[in-house]
Amino acid sequence: MYEVEVKVRADHETVESALDGAGAEFVDSVIQEDTYYDAPHRNFAETDEALRIRREREPEAPGDAEAEDGTETTKITYKGPLLEAESKSREEHETSVADREAVVGIFDGLGFEPAATVRKERAHYRLDGYTVTLDSVDGLGEFVEVETETEDDDIEAAREGARAVLDDLGLDPTEQIRTSYLGLLLADDASE
Amino acid sequence: MYEVEVKVRADHETVESALDGAGAEFVDSVIQEDTYYDAPHRNFAETDEALRIRREREPEAPGDAEAEDGTETTKITYKGPLLEAESKSREEHETSVADREAVVGIFDGLGFEPAATVRKERAHYRLDGYTVTLDSVDGLGEFVEVETETEDDDIEAAREGARAVLDDLGLDPTEQIRTSYLGLLLADDASE
Repeated sequence: MYEVEVKVRADHETVESALDGAGAEFVDSVIQEDTYYDAPHRNFAETDEALRIRREREPEAPGDAEAEDGTETTKITYKGPLLEAESKSREEHETSVADREAVVGIFDGLGFEPAATVRKERAHYRLDGYTVTLDSVDGLGEFVEVETETEDDDIEAAREGARAVLDDLGLDPTEQIRTSYLGLLLADDASE
Repeated sequence: MYEVEVKVRADHETVESALDGAGAEFVDSVIQEDTYYDAPHRNFAETDEALRIRREREPEAPGDAEAEDGTETTKITYKGPLLEAESKSREEHETSVADREAVVGIFDGLGFEPAATVRKERAHYRLDGYTVTLDSVDGLGEFVEVETETEDDDIEAAREGARAVLDDLGLDPTEQIRTSYLGLLLADDASE
């Protein structure tokens, strides 16, 4: 299975109306804080690998700002280099962990250093067999991603379908952004 | 708090009788399989660090050899270099993880390689405020450890107490082994 996704910048208020009009189903929303690490023995930017700690929690209900600690989860993820440029397939390993502070201590002890943090609020919708994700990324703004999973030989059809969904939502698929949020943030840093 | 422990080789059948006679309380028993990793950028034997994946499960009840998968837990542990030789204190971080295979994949992807595995069955008893641990270590044999936690200024008294417990169990505290099971296994490998 391959993941096909198309991402564009988009004002969420407009897209939410369009999703509503198209009969999309709201799935859930979540706050993610991703810390990416540099390795002591490799340049991950050159090797195209990534090591990440992700904190995830539900957005607080209004008036519930104090609670919610129990619902936070932490995951660690390793993404290996691209194995095949065409399909963008890569090795990926992820597990949830019980103690975030301990993982930070383990990475620090081993000489891995936090390089950048990407914090976003994301809302998931279902529409026409696609997942539509509204991302509000700290420091970058609002984005919409349309994605689905597909077999090897259906990639082009799935990509066409994702573009059609964007079109239906009043968005322009030719404005696709291929850079990750981490890449966009680091590019911003570099241009300052 | 410091951990004080004294370990000797000991035949478990004899020690179990002595524990029974002394009124020791059986706590639990567990099977631990510890895989220690080599780092790609440091020699842990020289830096005196350790990175470990521990699988832990309860021993199977007789006739229950097929079951038990649900009770297995996995932890990752990092031990830093000794900070102070006197107290043997060191940085240590440990967390349980949900997916052992994913952690193996993450370590492998990052270039860490399994160096040695220590597998043991251990039984814990309580006696006179001390924990008495009967370890049966694959490839090494049977050991007894007596340990307790104590404040900084009571270390010598705690050590004396641990030796007295060994003496009560018919064991000779002067035969103390200070090398870890990993160290003993690696020493065996080196002498072959």
